[in-house]
Amino acid sequence: MTWTLARRAARLEPSTIREILKLTERSGIISLAGGLPAAEGFPVAAMGEACARVLREHPREALQYAASEGFGPLREWVAQDLGAHGLQVQAQQVLITTGSQQGLDLVGKVLIDPGSRVAVESPTYLGALQAFNPYEAEYVSVPCDEEGPSPERLEVAAGARFLYLLPNFQNPSGRCLGAARRQALAARAQALGLPIVEDNPYGELWFDSPPPPPVSAAMNGEAIYLGSFSKVLAPGLRLGYVVAPPALFPKLLQAKQAADLHTPGFNQRVVHEVVKDGFLRQHVPAIRARYKAQRDAMRSALEQHLPAGCRWTVPAGGMFFWVELPPALDAAALLPKAVDAGVAYVPGAAFFAGDARANTLRLSFVTVAPARIEQGVTALGRVLAEALSS
Amino acid sequence: MTWTLARRAARLEPSTIREILKLTERSGIISLAGGLPAAEGFPVAAMGEACARVLREHPREALQYAASEGFGPLREWVAQDLGAHGLQVQAQQVLITTGSQQGLDLVGKVLIDPGSRVAVESPTYLGALQAFNPYEAEYVSVPCDEEGPSPERLEVAAGARFLYLLPNFQNPSGRCLGAARRQALAARAQALGLPIVEDNPYGELWFDSPPPPPVSAAMNGEAIYLGSFSKVLAPGLRLGYVVAPPALFPKLLQAKQAADLHTPGFNQRVVHEVVKDGFLRQHVPAIRARYKAQRDAMRSALEQHLPAGCRWTVPAGGMFFWVELPPALDAAALLPKAVDAGVAYVPGAAFFAGDARANTLRLSFVTVAPARIEQGVTALGRVLAEALSS
Repeated sequence: MTWTLARRAARLEPSTIREILKLTERSGIISLAGGLPAAEGFPVAAMGEACARVLREHPREALQYAASEGFGPLREWVAQDLGAHGLQVQAQQVLITTGSQQGLDLVGKVLIDPGSRVAVESPTYLGALQAFNPYEAEYVSVPCDEEGPSPERLEVAAGARFLYLLPNFQNPSGRCLGAARRQALAARAQALGLPIVEDNPYGELWFDSPPPPPVSAAMNGEAIYLGSFSKVLAPGLRLGYVVAPPALFPKLLQAKQAADLHTPGFNQRVVHEVVKDGFLRQHVPAIRARYKAQRDAMRSALEQHLPAGCRWTVPAGGMFFWVELPPALDAAALLPKAVDAGVAYVPGAAFFAGDARANTLRLSFVTVAPARIEQGVTALGRVLAEALSS
Repeated sequence: MTWTLARRAARLEPSTIREILKLTERSGIISLAGGLPAAEGFPVAAMGEACARVLREHPREALQYAASEGFGPLREWVAQDLGAHGLQVQAQQVLITTGSQQGLDLVGKVLIDPGSRVAVESPTYLGALQAFNPYEAEYVSVPCDEEGPSPERLEVAAGARFLYLLPNFQNPSGRCLGAARRQALAARAQALGLPIVEDNPYGELWFDSPPPPPVSAAMNGEAIYLGSFSKVLAPGLRLGYVVAPPALFPKLLQAKQAADLHTPGFNQRVVHEVVKDGFLRQHVPAIRARYKAQRDAMRSALEQHLPAGCRWTVPAGGMFFWVELPPALDAAALLPKAVDAGVAYVPGAAFFAGDARANTLRLSFVTVAPARIEQGVTALGRVLAEALSS
């Protein structure tokens, strides 16, 4: 039989992270490699009650085919919630997606032609690259400092289809853009006619104070904004959303319909039941407290156990530390040694669209208990020290 | 702001059916236009128990990120179930998808280049055209008779990326391919080196005897096969699957990962709980009995009320009658009159990839009670008779 693959299929590749996660399934390995939220924070009781209520009160509607746009009351809730976070949108601009990964796929489908330039941060979120790759994007990495993309250097992105930004506690770097940087980026993007796609999976996971309003809020309603319930409720529900300017919404909606008709209506109604009366106001602070304690544990472990010459910024939210090793070290080459020593991480190279910096790695602090974090970082420190001395 | 759409976005269009469904929301309209299964058949109690059990026994696993391939025990169940239906596959060939619509999207993503020829039946399933369109497919319609695509004419499809087939109670035509036709099509496709993508959403909805084994069963493990839980359980769960030859599986898996990471794990576990001990063996016969009674009601209504010159084949399963009007009539042009008379249908033209036959329409018999079917078909008969006499 003669199957011929589409050209874009050559751009589909096995996920580096999944390959690493397989390594870490060996028992005894302390995995700081995962990107999973802590399962202890999942609202199991609230979910159970919501499932029962939805099946009691609206069983047929919940189990029937539904609108591609999403469940009306959930779209309303999202619009209100964004308003409270400084982004004014109409419910009709909200498209419910099967996780925010699907939002990235739909954005790629509607906006990227083979060879289109897409501007990204350096480093950037790997899942976005995976979503955009099959549409044969060519990437432009915007030069970044510790506060994120540099507005003064944004002209390298001129003419790109859009700039993909993850301003809050970015995966992988953990960085959060300040208010002034957001304003400056929005102004410069507008001057350049550069559209922005803003992704915000981690914004609610702040430790001391909430991040500034979204970059989209300074874009006169012209940005695409993606959000998710994965980090504040649970990722296994696959529930996210895209907010799009009215002129773009119909194409994203048609792409959504072609992709999976609609996001499971049952899940949408269950999540709406859970969130509609303010549940997140009690629930999310508990996640924040847990993650902050874990962040503190990793911070002190890093300070104690990593050899001189390693650098990191302490994240003010989210799930990740981003570590820069001395330039001579290659995080990917060292990974097998680390796994032998009982600890795993994600080498940073996969998070760069170009010019990968081999001396970087990502550590998650949310799924491993503080004592094990200490143990894992100790092992990592030893591996790095040994590599430096050899 | 300068948003530039991808070229493929021009191939995304509003769904004709959705536009028609909006018309039919006027109260009092008897809609025979829908493609929805009957909500009376949804297994609400079993779903409720399964949700509670999953959240009690495996809450964290069900709510956490999960494997892109799908939930292992559900993949095993699908492989066993297909074996019982005459298609031998390994669980590792089963990719769980967010509805079988997503299976169509992934197939398009991996196999269709701009300008690729894709062979389809005439008429064919509209949702497949919607999934393939954004990948800029060019369609070849294989000449069909009442038994489906003609093996003798299959050479028109030579060189196409694949032939998309829906052999069981096709949407929209209702036709079911006989065993000999399946064998002949498989043999001819193999001789031509023409890959087959077989879609089977309706196969379990037979009224008197099950359909013959899948066409894929005669393709030496070389076909792609799509299935769904939407018609035997409930579509609001968005749960389907693709079975792929081992050589193609990794690309479909990578496309799946890029598209939405994975299908909601909660839904997969709930459905596995529902089906694992043979629930469908009692449940599906009840759906069959209901649909058969409705089919009979529509058949006698059509016999009594449609004017001479209208033709239809009585479907032996599924959800639809396909009606051919006298050649002078245009079903799309008559729709507003029908809606004024209190009945709606889907004009057939949308189901053709080319050479649309304007004198065709699709009627669903599953969601409207027999008395209302009679009323609706009576109204339709009057509208047609009037059109013929004017």
